[in-house]
Amino acid sequence: MSKLAYLGPQGTFCEAALRLLEPDAERLPCANVGAALDAARDGEADGAVVPLENSVEGAITQTLDELAGGRPLHITGEWLLPVEFSLLVRPGTELAQIKRVITHPAAHTQCRGYIERELPGAVVIAASSTAAAAQEVASPESPYDAAISPAIAGEYYALDAIASNIGDRSDTVTRFIKVNRPGRLSEPTGADRTSLVAFLRDDHPGALLEMLSEFAVRGVNLTRIESRPTGDGIGRYFFHFDLEGHIADARVGEAVAGLHRLCDDVRFLGSYPRADRLPTQIKEGTADADFAEAADWLTKIRAGRA
Amino acid sequence: MSKLAYLGPQGTFCEAALRLLEPDAERLPCANVGAALDAARDGEADGAVVPLENSVEGAITQTLDELAGGRPLHITGEWLLPVEFSLLVRPGTELAQIKRVITHPAAHTQCRGYIERELPGAVVIAASSTAAAAQEVASPESPYDAAISPAIAGEYYALDAIASNIGDRSDTVTRFIKVNRPGRLSEPTGADRTSLVAFLRDDHPGALLEMLSEFAVRGVNLTRIESRPTGDGIGRYFFHFDLEGHIADARVGEAVAGLHRLCDDVRFLGSYPRADRLPTQIKEGTADADFAEAADWLTKIRAGRA
Amino acid sequence: MSKLAYLGPQGTFCEAALRLLEPDAERLPCANVGAALDAARDGEADGAVVPLENSVEGAITQTLDELAGGRPLHITGEWLLPVEFSLLVRPGTELAQIKRVITHPAAHTQCRGYIERELPGAVVIAASSTAAAAQEVASPESPYDAAISPAIAGEYYALDAIASNIGDRSDTVTRFIKVNRPGRLSEPTGADRTSLVAFLRDDHPGALLEMLSEFAVRGVNLTRIESRPTGDGIGRYFFHFDLEGHIADARVGEAVAGLHRLCDDVRFLGSYPRADRLPTQIKEGTADADFAEAADWLTKIRAGRA
Amino acid sequence: MSKLAYLGPQGTFCEAALRLLEPDAERLPCANVGAALDAARDGEADGAVVPLENSVEGAITQTLDELAGGRPLHITGEWLLPVEFSLLVRPGTELAQIKRVITHPAAHTQCRGYIERELPGAVVIAASSTAAAAQEVASPESPYDAAISPAIAGEYYALDAIASNIGDRSDTVTRFIKVNRPGRLSEPTGADRTSLVAFLRDDHPGALLEMLSEFAVRGVNLTRIESRPTGDGIGRYFFHFDLEGHIADARVGEAVAGLHRLCDDVRFLGSYPRADRLPTQIKEGTADADFAEAADWLTKIRAGRA
Repeated sequence: MSKLAYLGPQGTFCEAALRLLEPDAERLPCANVGAALDAARDGEADGAVVPLENSVEGAITQTLDELAGGRPLHITGEWLLPVEFSLLVRPGTELAQIKRVITHPAAHTQCRGYIERELPGAVVIAASSTAAAAQEVASPESPYDAAISPAIAGEYYALDAIASNIGDRSDTVTRFIKVNRPGRLSEPTGADRTSLVAFLRDDHPGALLEMLSEFAVRGVNLTRIESRPTGDGIGRYFFHFDLEGHIADARVGEAVAGLHRLCDDVRFLGSYPRADRLPTQIKEGTADADFAEAADWLTKIRAGRA
Repeated sequence: MSKLAYLGPQGTFCEAALRLLEPDAERLPCANVGAALDAARDGEADGAVVPLENSVEGAITQTLDELAGGRPLHITGEWLLPVEFSLLVRPGTELAQIKRVITHPAAHTQCRGYIERELPGAVVIAASSTAAAAQEVASPESPYDAAISPAIAGEYYALDAIASNIGDRSDTVTRFIKVNRPGRLSEPTGADRTSLVAFLRDDHPGALLEMLSEFAVRGVNLTRIESRPTGDGIGRYFFHFDLEGHIADARVGEAVAGLHRLCDDVRFLGSYPRADRLPTQIKEGTADADFAEAADWLTKIRAGRA
Repeated sequence: MSKLAYLGPQGTFCEAALRLLEPDAERLPCANVGAALDAARDGEADGAVVPLENSVEGAITQTLDELAGGRPLHITGEWLLPVEFSLLVRPGTELAQIKRVITHPAAHTQCRGYIERELPGAVVIAASSTAAAAQEVASPESPYDAAISPAIAGEYYALDAIASNIGDRSDTVTRFIKVNRPGRLSEPTGADRTSLVAFLRDDHPGALLEMLSEFAVRGVNLTRIESRPTGDGIGRYFFHFDLEGHIADARVGEAVAGLHRLCDDVRFLGSYPRADRLPTQIKEGTADADFAEAADWLTKIRAGRA
Repeated sequence: MSKLAYLGPQGTFCEAALRLLEPDAERLPCANVGAALDAARDGEADGAVVPLENSVEGAITQTLDELAGGRPLHITGEWLLPVEFSLLVRPGTELAQIKRVITHPAAHTQCRGYIERELPGAVVIAASSTAAAAQEVASPESPYDAAISPAIAGEYYALDAIASNIGDRSDTVTRFIKVNRPGRLSEPTGADRTSLVAFLRDDHPGALLEMLSEFAVRGVNLTRIESRPTGDGIGRYFFHFDLEGHIADARVGEAVAGLHRLCDDVRFLGSYPRADRLPTQIKEGTADADFAEAADWLTKIRAGRA
């Protein structure tokens, strides 16, 4: 049975994802993304499950930054989970009694419509996580009347869900990833994704265009690009890329090797099956067989046999 | 005398920036970036000052998202401010007594070295802002012994700085912007920046490469690019761009008009002097005079006179 | 009635094209392409008809080079004419008697199959043109037994066509152009072509890619590109371009103005209806209305009204 | 001793090049470029020397087309030879007596200034080659008084050079190539050139841009590009490329393999030392060592060891 660290405390969406998708795993809650990843790095856990991006909030920057530095970890899987917020109260509290609400600012943003409509006079206070908000409300002396949290947090902290699925959009999803210490890669499935981090050699104008050209020329589609600061001043960035295909694919390998030649450093973050199972669209001339045929042809030419 | 909304409460870096740079302005603290921008939109304030990005934390995504939606606002100025954290305590507290520290998670990250070194046993709790942390510590019944906050917060909340400039990096800066309701643009200075948001018509592979090509072909350098989720599911993004030059520059205007033709929507966020005063590098053939000469030539050709 | 110079002598394909397409024009045969163009430049003729390219032989380089230098001329029309060769003999000559054939080397190349099959022992001698070959054979003392020439040459020089349409390919065509002194351009028809010559500022690697990008970014398709030596040593070229659309089209105008800014010199060679009447494919966002809308939008932004 | 076919008859510039550069080779004059190449293909000769391009006239299209089709041949060397024309006459003829001049049209073009200045009343007749013109004048009954030909033709046909180096430009050069049947390639020298022919899969807009991108992304500079008609109608082309570097170079090999995947067919025409001995400029990240290092890195990643 594997042991997986996750972004805690108990009751986070991250735990919900983990329970749903790896129900048999032992779960190790960690205080933040960095701690969860370190647990995987150190061997305290076999791996870690952390959020990577949210369809409303965007990238989870701590995850991006923690994966870009420190000892390497590989993404080995991804899941897309709907984000559903509940309004959690101590048993007995009624809607009309709610004056002070606590939740994470992102949840506040995503439930703004509900709050204005149903809790017009309530004050909303920021917590460090939606699960921490529930934990806070669970205390009998808490100055807060309700928490906006995942339903799962209600179970842990013995709170009642006075309302469910109160987000302004019903289609919000979070993308979670599972990471492990580097090891043998999983086999390509035809519906894979590869994640990378690229550090520019020098940050000249046109550098991003050059990086994108490495992918475009080999027919590799990017599905996500994020710029992140290097820390060396405003205007200095490194880049996270998600792309279609597996590093074992010829076109992906050549593109990534090209990126490696272009950059100061490229960190491979893994090739893994896509959560949506959409097969990679392969542009004419860029299938593995096309690369193999071209390589044979080149070998013959170089040997003077063509 | 102008009145400027800012990201409060009193004692934030944002207020420090505002006090330093527009010392005569009346200051209106707001609970969050959205509230500050709305104050400017509604006329409650003449403008607003908010953070846009930080050299360590990256983009302030609320600012990006608030500027991309809602009634338009124009960036009219930018400033780069060093980020210097102080360890603030109630008068009389000594370093050895500090067991519980409160601060914003970003500040926690940036002061991790100091905390490990000087406060090895302390617990660090998350606040919604560094100024709110100071406000919290100021309360005599506070369960917290110290706040990591800007020095300015000490003044407001009558706290003592037991240590100054405790960030792990001494060169961290935040870029603040001033925004106003749309109006007459400032004149080009030769060292300007232009900010934009672009929403793709459809999110096909290569769309970003096409957008970058609009800039590259006109010799316009990008200084920042951020992808943000549209909210319509993982994998759907819009883009923030900062570019060198003023919208009044011929090459910038043509590039931005090209982007407008390529996209579903482009929102202009302003042209304004760069904080670093670095003059725009103009590639051969892309100065205003080159565009004017080419336009004259084209007019003659179309009239059959060349 | 207009007077048109053409590539003579009488009996050339060029004359055949002219007679077919402007039957009422007075015809002025000229010794070579340069002389025909000079007749148009000098006012000796109202215009000139010359070949530009052939589907088997390629570009007529004299035409390219003469149009790139000297006083400017504008292409005002183009025609595609099938190339059909006849085997012309003095009346009474029979196939078996043909031992010495004269023709232009290009015609020789294009009729190689017929000659090997039907005239296996014959010697083929080069003439300066296919019409000159017919003229030569017409002389009773000619050492040549037959000419490979256009059928029309037989009429002029009183020769019999012992075989017709003897080219190895039945689909060979030549593209002829009509040129005039610069004047008011014809109106766009929606199925136009524009011709240009571009001289690079400096011949750096990537210069051609940059030129093509000017067209690609504005959605302008190239239909022909020819490199020609500048005369300043091997490796120094200038370029002829044919592109879809009319210089009056917004996207063509902007692309050509962009090329002008990029290059040392661009010579406009005319916008004129395509012989094949194929309407220009207009990529989304690049119609005149799109450019006009983008220009309006930009004007509003620059005026601070958006 | 090797036997080399060349573009005859005796007395051509091609023979001059061959005599100068391979003085010991046995020489086989051929009637045209195709015949010379066929002699090499058939084994009648060990190789052939033919002109490829001229700094004033441009590409020798027969050479381009003959190399693109038929049994493959490899270019194994190139030379740049100055083109110097002489005015050749039968012994005893004086300048004032010259009324009828014969030469190849290209030579006529290149000596136009001399003819206008020194032979203002003379008629110039076209010959199939400059050497054939000399041969013609050598006949006592010739109707021509002088030939414009290479000096070497005077030796063969016992003519006197009444004037030398009469071209309008003193710097005209022709690039000659030596071709052989395919065999072991010569070793890279660091100053090599590679020649190719590429046939597009389909002639869509942007196809040329795609081909050039294959080279640009690998840092391979093109030194010559020629479009040639496929024969399948106006607007259908194939392309000749000369590029810097040797097919054994990693960046050249990858670019050419990429072109192969993109195209219907690519014909390799050889890698050989440049006549000008200019070493290849290698862009950062594209040296063989960079490719090797990137390949090692990729191998490790794919094996799960990085």
